[in-house]
Amino acid sequence: MRTAEPAPAGTLGAGRDSSRCAGHDSSHGAPLSPIAIDADLRRIVGPEHVEIRPAALVPYRTDATFGFSGVPQAVVRPGSTEEVARILRWADRHRIPIVPRGAGTSLAAGAVPVQGGVVLALTRMDRVVAVDPVDLTAVVQPGVTTQTLARAVAEYGLHYPPDPGSQRVSTLGGNVATNAGGLHGLKYGNTGGYVLGVEAVLADGEVIRAGGRLLKDVAGYDLVRLLTGSEGTLAVLTELTLALRPAPATSRTGLAYFADLEAAGEAVRGIVAAGVLPATLEFLDAHCVRAVESYARLGLDTTAGALLLFGDDGGAPEVDRTLHVMAETARSHGALSVQVATAAAESEALLAARRCALPALSKLGGATMLEDVGVPRSRLPELVRRIDEIAARHGVTIATFGHAGDGNAHPVGCFDPGDARQRAAVAAAFDDVFAVAVELGGTITGEHGVGAAKLPYLAAQLGGAQVALQARIKRAFDPKGILNPGKLGS
Amino acid sequence: MRTAEPAPAGTLGAGRDSSRCAGHDSSHGAPLSPIAIDADLRRIVGPEHVEIRPAALVPYRTDATFGFSGVPQAVVRPGSTEEVARILRWADRHRIPIVPRGAGTSLAAGAVPVQGGVVLALTRMDRVVAVDPVDLTAVVQPGVTTQTLARAVAEYGLHYPPDPGSQRVSTLGGNVATNAGGLHGLKYGNTGGYVLGVEAVLADGEVIRAGGRLLKDVAGYDLVRLLTGSEGTLAVLTELTLALRPAPATSRTGLAYFADLEAAGEAVRGIVAAGVLPATLEFLDAHCVRAVESYARLGLDTTAGALLLFGDDGGAPEVDRTLHVMAETARSHGALSVQVATAAAESEALLAARRCALPALSKLGGATMLEDVGVPRSRLPELVRRIDEIAARHGVTIATFGHAGDGNAHPVGCFDPGDARQRAAVAAAFDDVFAVAVELGGTITGEHGVGAAKLPYLAAQLGGAQVALQARIKRAFDPKGILNPGKLGS
Repeated sequence: MRTAEPAPAGTLGAGRDSSRCAGHDSSHGAPLSPIAIDADLRRIVGPEHVEIRPAALVPYRTDATFGFSGVPQAVVRPGSTEEVARILRWADRHRIPIVPRGAGTSLAAGAVPVQGGVVLALTRMDRVVAVDPVDLTAVVQPGVTTQTLARAVAEYGLHYPPDPGSQRVSTLGGNVATNAGGLHGLKYGNTGGYVLGVEAVLADGEVIRAGGRLLKDVAGYDLVRLLTGSEGTLAVLTELTLALRPAPATSRTGLAYFADLEAAGEAVRGIVAAGVLPATLEFLDAHCVRAVESYARLGLDTTAGALLLFGDDGGAPEVDRTLHVMAETARSHGALSVQVATAAAESEALLAARRCALPALSKLGGATMLEDVGVPRSRLPELVRRIDEIAARHGVTIATFGHAGDGNAHPVGCFDPGDARQRAAVAAAFDDVFAVAVELGGTITGEHGVGAAKLPYLAAQLGGAQVALQARIKRAFDPKGILNPGKLGS
Repeated sequence: MRTAEPAPAGTLGAGRDSSRCAGHDSSHGAPLSPIAIDADLRRIVGPEHVEIRPAALVPYRTDATFGFSGVPQAVVRPGSTEEVARILRWADRHRIPIVPRGAGTSLAAGAVPVQGGVVLALTRMDRVVAVDPVDLTAVVQPGVTTQTLARAVAEYGLHYPPDPGSQRVSTLGGNVATNAGGLHGLKYGNTGGYVLGVEAVLADGEVIRAGGRLLKDVAGYDLVRLLTGSEGTLAVLTELTLALRPAPATSRTGLAYFADLEAAGEAVRGIVAAGVLPATLEFLDAHCVRAVESYARLGLDTTAGALLLFGDDGGAPEVDRTLHVMAETARSHGALSVQVATAAAESEALLAARRCALPALSKLGGATMLEDVGVPRSRLPELVRRIDEIAARHGVTIATFGHAGDGNAHPVGCFDPGDARQRAAVAAAFDDVFAVAVELGGTITGEHGVGAAKLPYLAAQLGGAQVALQARIKRAFDPKGILNPGKLGS
């Protein structure tokens, strides 16, 4: 389903589906002129918060996904829920697509305006409204970055566990809209587990509030969780109430090398069987270990077939105990060597191997295509073995790292961006990878989302009846199809 | 909104809305005769699993909710997903209401056939399909009781944390359908946090599977969480994949008396501020303490204004630490006295005070009306104070116990069931209690659900736009309105 033509000159990426990238569908009623769009939006948010100049719109054609682009007609930056509501009432009246956007770090083309329309950038709504250390909640606007919240709550001795890889820049609105994951899924779960309440603007401009500063609330269908992960296709999130936890007193990390991923997988089984739910349990395959070492010179053992990072947080005696159990379990399951950090700086050094996996891989061939599949934890070694077979069959390099604790793997296709044949082969290999993930009882996306990139694969996982049901849910929220069209529910 | 007429002779409860209890709506096409219903259902499930005799249907007229009843035309007990699918295809064709039912322990009239139709009892589908100690998952049919699962996973050294009060008899299908809570919400969350996947039959008989043995899966709208808590109004759950955790090594409990609930609330603030997330944090007001002591002679201090039970589980050193912190925090916040159990039997004895609150209260006036409101944790003392004021204003007795950790309170109206004026006054007082819960940023139902009992109050919490949206979601799943009509989405 991926096309492999080189990026056309003048765009930042290749529109893989360029026939749908021609501004908003004219069947949506008489289209407004760019001048009229500009004038209408300026009246709502003020002239300094609207852009229609093509050069200024270039950054909004793409997000962080390789090979997807669209052509927005405008970008608008509202400053309040009321402005969002007015924009949606206007868009609803004129049937203009609205593409909500945070920091634009989507890896599934979730923020690409594939059917044109107006990009609704929520980055101005960036206020931490409240942190409550008794209710253990934070109330934030959607444009607050993950890291900003983490720092704000740390001042109260509190902890917001979800930490997607892009947390330095990604926004909480985007995190919630995609139910973003991170490194601590096994112990702490994903973003969705921390969303207690939302304020959201429906497609017709109506403002609703669901949930709140409540750990228990079963009044009605769970719209908080339905909107979480709905990728801007059901409503626009304008305020979030998030759950916090007490900050763990300490955290520590260890590292083990194995001959292959099967052996690392056996160690993971052993750790879980020993009753430990580690805060961190990450793996790198041999490709990744070698790429990271060549990139960052961390002193990794490049002869190893797999690297397992393990870590925990909490009270010091308990962390000492779980680190000891994990290190001993790794040893008794054939680890080639095991290191356990004794100090925070050493823990950070070990984690660096995982953190620089993606930049290191991007040096290998020149370009990378990052994927995101998931399987039950017990099937992860089999998944990676099958990915290796697929890569060999297609004659491409796919390196895999990911979350051994929660079964979420990130295979990365490495290729020369100027070599169309290589690119096509990587795309074809990923088609096979998705099919294998589904065959193993898994998912085509563990944490990146569906966006435009995964939509063609969704029915293979969910079945036609469920995809049809999802489209009916979409219509219940957005009968005119103006919210992020060409994505979920389409 | 509650009516107060005595129960009509010949029913087990008072149909508070008896105009809607007259069999299925004849506007749903030409109604089938009882004989035809019987014959059709017998063909699907076999003759021994269908009942249409009025005497045999009596238990299916009500659930555990005071004052609600309906008149079902039949009860059918399918043995497989395929049989459920065939029953729904049949019901869809004939527009016959289907009321899914587990153990019938609903406290919100969620399982009452208020519009008649066929009760779909899922108790025969009671198989624990699989327990996987590596993936930390259990796969169960909906008729498995909560306690059966808890025991099945304990054999693997695993733990299924949700423990609704009715766990000995309540089914997991019912727990998931209502997103049931329990005593450990603050540390462990509710049932919804443990539902990884569902198999469900849609209103037209189509079978879907959403989620699976996966901690991370963002492929599409989160139907797992939308169906969780949908109270049988969107689909019939036929298989559940649930998350497990390692069993905690130990657990311990303590008890503190306070002069009033405000003081107990200050201790709760102090415990959370000290960075402890206790597994148990329950309260009883003075009415409850006195009722329990008079009922069970546990040696409680009946002069105290409030009792706080606190407990934790995990590794022994950490539990020692958190129990010490909680006991010291209670003392430094004015506790009249504090006891900490040193052995498991002693912990059980302390918990008995909480466990027998409801039976003890039912001895007070003869009948009880149990309610279920929630507020942010910090507002709980204010809620209970306002409940006391409301009770005084209406001249009724309302005793309150509940979950201090998660803000969920259970006010219990105690009255003489033969005294219609008392009953009406309790019902009127609860109308005021719901309004106060919403005013304090809370909910009309923390864990019992909406059912038929809370439906009239839903718009006061959610607003008309959101209730209308919920009705559109209902129609996206069940356009003919056959699934548990007169409940959520109606």
